[in-house]
Amino acid sequence: MNDWDWMQAALDEAKTALCENEVPVGAVIVKNGAIVSSAHNRCELNHDPLLHAEMIVLKDAYAKLGSLNGCTLYVTLEPCAMCAGAMLHLKLPRLVFGAFDPDCGCCGSRIDLGDHWFGHDIETIGGICEDECRTLITSFFSQLRHK
Amino acid sequence: MNDWDWMQAALDEAKTALCENEVPVGAVIVKNGAIVSSAHNRCELNHDPLLHAEMIVLKDAYAKLGSLNGCTLYVTLEPCAMCAGAMLHLKLPRLVFGAFDPDCGCCGSRIDLGDHWFGHDIETIGGICEDECRTLITSFFSQLRHK
Repeated sequence: MNDWDWMQAALDEAKTALCENEVPVGAVIVKNGAIVSSAHNRCELNHDPLLHAEMIVLKDAYAKLGSLNGCTLYVTLEPCAMCAGAMLHLKLPRLVFGAFDPDCGCCGSRIDLGDHWFGHDIETIGGICEDECRTLITSFFSQLRHK
Repeated sequence: MNDWDWMQAALDEAKTALCENEVPVGAVIVKNGAIVSSAHNRCELNHDPLLHAEMIVLKDAYAKLGSLNGCTLYVTLEPCAMCAGAMLHLKLPRLVFGAFDPDCGCCGSRIDLGDHWFGHDIETIGGICEDECRTLITSFFSQLRHK
């Protein structure tokens, strides 16, 4: 399994989100070749705009493992300030994201929190399965506008 | 009641945190002259580094009110990237903080998320009851180092 394969698992979560009328973003946390936690956005379902896929898997994986040592977070969309901040607090070692987010992305697009040394560096790769991740989100918003 | 008075309520929360060996940060959310939610850091107690005082009151107030229209968040320490990001998502109108945080503060000190237009502006005032807020935190860390 490589980064592309794990991103497919995150994409599966994003597709589940789509079926639930959530913004289709999915995330998985992987350690030692196995998924520790997987989730998709639950903002609508739980009436909580802070329930981003990343926040859910980060909290869940940390609760299970007590540390994110050796973990990689795969997420279909570039994380926002809140999620990127949470990753820094939990000392996530590695982040792989799919689509870049020119509006709210805080891992290189809008700003790069990694440029501002907050006591921890996250190895970050963006643009993995980018087309598939982006198409899912743009179709969702285009359908929403159509409705 | 003015900003100084409400910050005293946040400071009371911070002092409770201190008694529980938490980093002494407290927060309250106020609307129409009444406290909607109050909390302090619970990172140690809940073994969750993301349970900052701000995250707790933001989630709680949003769950109670369904929107943060007309709310002010008072917090004894300048918010980090995660908490400042959460405030933007919930469209908090107004933020008042006590001590500036040169290490992790994302409302003017380290960076200012407000400088990067994320679709919402938060009216922000820093340095209210600054000495009292800062002293509480610096004493905590100095005692921690002594131990």
